[in-house]
Amino acid sequence: MEKMKFSTAYFAPSQLWKWLLLSLLIGIPVGLASAGFLTALDWVTQTREAAIWLIAFLPLGGLLIGLLYHYYGQDVVKGNNQLLEEFHSPKQIIPFKMAPLVLIGTLLTHLFGGSAGREGTAVQMGGAIADQFSKKFGITSSERQMILIAGISGGFASVFGTPLAGAVFAIEVLAKGTNRYRAVLPSLFTAVVADMTCHYAGATHTIYTIPFVPDIQPTFLLWSVLAGILFGLAAFSFSKVVHFFGKMFSSGFSYPPLRPVIGGIIIAVVVYLMGTTKYIGLGIPTIVSAFEQSLPPYDFMIKLLLTTFTLGAGFKGGEVTPLFFIGATLGNALSFFIPLPMALLAGMGFVAVFSGATNTPLACTIMGLELFGTEAGIFIAIACFVAFFASGKTGIYSSQEVHRFKSKWFKIFDRATK
Amino acid sequence: MEKMKFSTAYFAPSQLWKWLLLSLLIGIPVGLASAGFLTALDWVTQTREAAIWLIAFLPLGGLLIGLLYHYYGQDVVKGNNQLLEEFHSPKQIIPFKMAPLVLIGTLLTHLFGGSAGREGTAVQMGGAIADQFSKKFGITSSERQMILIAGISGGFASVFGTPLAGAVFAIEVLAKGTNRYRAVLPSLFTAVVADMTCHYAGATHTIYTIPFVPDIQPTFLLWSVLAGILFGLAAFSFSKVVHFFGKMFSSGFSYPPLRPVIGGIIIAVVVYLMGTTKYIGLGIPTIVSAFEQSLPPYDFMIKLLLTTFTLGAGFKGGEVTPLFFIGATLGNALSFFIPLPMALLAGMGFVAVFSGATNTPLACTIMGLELFGTEAGIFIAIACFVAFFASGKTGIYSSQEVHRFKSKWFKIFDRATK
Repeated sequence: MEKMKFSTAYFAPSQLWKWLLLSLLIGIPVGLASAGFLTALDWVTQTREAAIWLIAFLPLGGLLIGLLYHYYGQDVVKGNNQLLEEFHSPKQIIPFKMAPLVLIGTLLTHLFGGSAGREGTAVQMGGAIADQFSKKFGITSSERQMILIAGISGGFASVFGTPLAGAVFAIEVLAKGTNRYRAVLPSLFTAVVADMTCHYAGATHTIYTIPFVPDIQPTFLLWSVLAGILFGLAAFSFSKVVHFFGKMFSSGFSYPPLRPVIGGIIIAVVVYLMGTTKYIGLGIPTIVSAFEQSLPPYDFMIKLLLTTFTLGAGFKGGEVTPLFFIGATLGNALSFFIPLPMALLAGMGFVAVFSGATNTPLACTIMGLELFGTEAGIFIAIACFVAFFASGKTGIYSSQEVHRFKSKWFKIFDRATK
Repeated sequence: MEKMKFSTAYFAPSQLWKWLLLSLLIGIPVGLASAGFLTALDWVTQTREAAIWLIAFLPLGGLLIGLLYHYYGQDVVKGNNQLLEEFHSPKQIIPFKMAPLVLIGTLLTHLFGGSAGREGTAVQMGGAIADQFSKKFGITSSERQMILIAGISGGFASVFGTPLAGAVFAIEVLAKGTNRYRAVLPSLFTAVVADMTCHYAGATHTIYTIPFVPDIQPTFLLWSVLAGILFGLAAFSFSKVVHFFGKMFSSGFSYPPLRPVIGGIIIAVVVYLMGTTKYIGLGIPTIVSAFEQSLPPYDFMIKLLLTTFTLGAGFKGGEVTPLFFIGATLGNALSFFIPLPMALLAGMGFVAVFSGATNTPLACTIMGLELFGTEAGIFIAIACFVAFFASGKTGIYSSQEVHRFKSKWFKIFDRATK
């Protein structure tokens, strides 16, 4: 595939109808894939909670995932990072098998009690489905970038039921500069179509509410900034620890299928010793209670370790729902000494830790508006942007090209922590 | 003042406390100025509506404004464009007198029945107040850019009661690329402080509501795109006509104070012949009814002509509230043949025509979310971004540096319409 021409337009107004059509072609299958995935994930989660003994078979689930990817999925194993790399330096069309493999891998992970998310799955299914259209319609290389954005946008939008945030997330994680403006409409169309399709197909999304937002006072701004810094540090820790466990497993066990087996044994033992399934799977019930009642202040830390360990060992799913969990429970814990309502702090953490870990502060602010309404907007925006700055340059996507100015500031810091 | 260094950071995390302090120092006086302005504007509008004969003195009001600016305000007469120019190629600190002059000019314009807005006033007061701090604190040239953004942000946020939109507007109209991310926190802090101050000082803002947002259907997307194109064309017409009248007056009358006198006579006669004050001043009552009942389909056109004529003649105030009027009434008119709820179309037009005229689609989308809630988010976002693309490269701010890719596409179109 020829080298990307960044100077050519992704999206010209005259191509509006072409992109409307493409957003239908991409959005409908992506939305259906997300709906099927969400339904299966619900079933898998309920099955596990009804039959806790399944967790003892996590090493076996890990072996299955490891063998699948080792023998059939070497060329799709990099997941989200692979989509980012193809965007920035294209080599080949994303193989379609990325979609079924990540779907199976994620369902096995959740069935046997790994701690993981679901956005990685939706985004990889979206990207892989969308990229199949790159072979057709006389697509140029810059149009292919647009197609990748659309696929990611549709996957993210439909799995969380947040079309605006999905559209902005795909753009913010990939595109830069004025290219961002060109990408908005195709990304938004696909997000809407995929989300709509997913709804029509019967999938539902959890509703989180912040029942009370205080009138803004000057001191609240300071407290929001402080909370944002702490959310950013949590995101920083998450990124560092996920890379640490990844390296630990890959250097410790040269035969990849062995990694999730060993990881699975350790996780199963830890869950058995803790005597609770609260920290495995998606953790939605705990996220919901973080908006409602005081939780143990160490919740976020356990989830952070379990998720980074699960993913580092080679299980599948994604990071975002665990990041929601970490942020919401950390926000809940912060309400012990920060004089803001607990639900507001939980909501701020929910999106801000995600913002810091993925370097997408605008998408996370908009997601906060979509999920919690606009009353909390100022608090959400401050938390997301402060966390973005405070989280360091790393992020969970090692192939992401983070803003240069951010990298520069954190070079010294990084050197100190390496 | 030395040449701007775009490579240096506007905002480093270590400078957080400095910017928090500056946002208080800038935000409080800017918020107070907006509150005083809004209160005076209310009084002036009520006085005029109670004493319609005042409109006969519009030429006299015009003469006062013309003389004021000719003898005392030559160096601040460019208004909003001057702020943009100082940002991109700095020459001198904005003279403080820009604030009182635009305040007096706007109140005279509205007292005697010109058709104008208020954001120009708030933005110029904000920019002029903020820039006084550029002399102090050992401010660098790139920090001064940040101060200008903060001033504009505070003025816009407080005059409309939309802090998020104000913060994004200031950034979107001025900064580019990754500089935008650096500017978010200082801009947001100042917006919040100014808005809060303005509320505490007793100013109130009109509440617009979209009572019913339909579930999204595929055809609705197409209709939204069509509406967005029409809103964009209205914005394009507004920009073209405002520049046309500006040139007409400046080439027709070499002595500037004469321009608003002649303009004032013509407007007073037209208003007398129409027999209604519906199209002068801010036009808030009509904007509110555009969400509630069918209006004459030509409303937007009359407001467009009257406002561009008023501003072209040298009256003061701004374009944004008239753009709200034009968009809301055009949206209202479109409900005759576009099968979307009238209030939704009015809300879409409200922000989309503004988006097209100022090239700030993200700020307008966020303003739509702040004003109307997130249910309408998708429709608002599509309308704002389609209008942005469909509106051509011009915009109402001739000193704005619009995205290059936009300019390119419209070169041919522009040549045809010149």
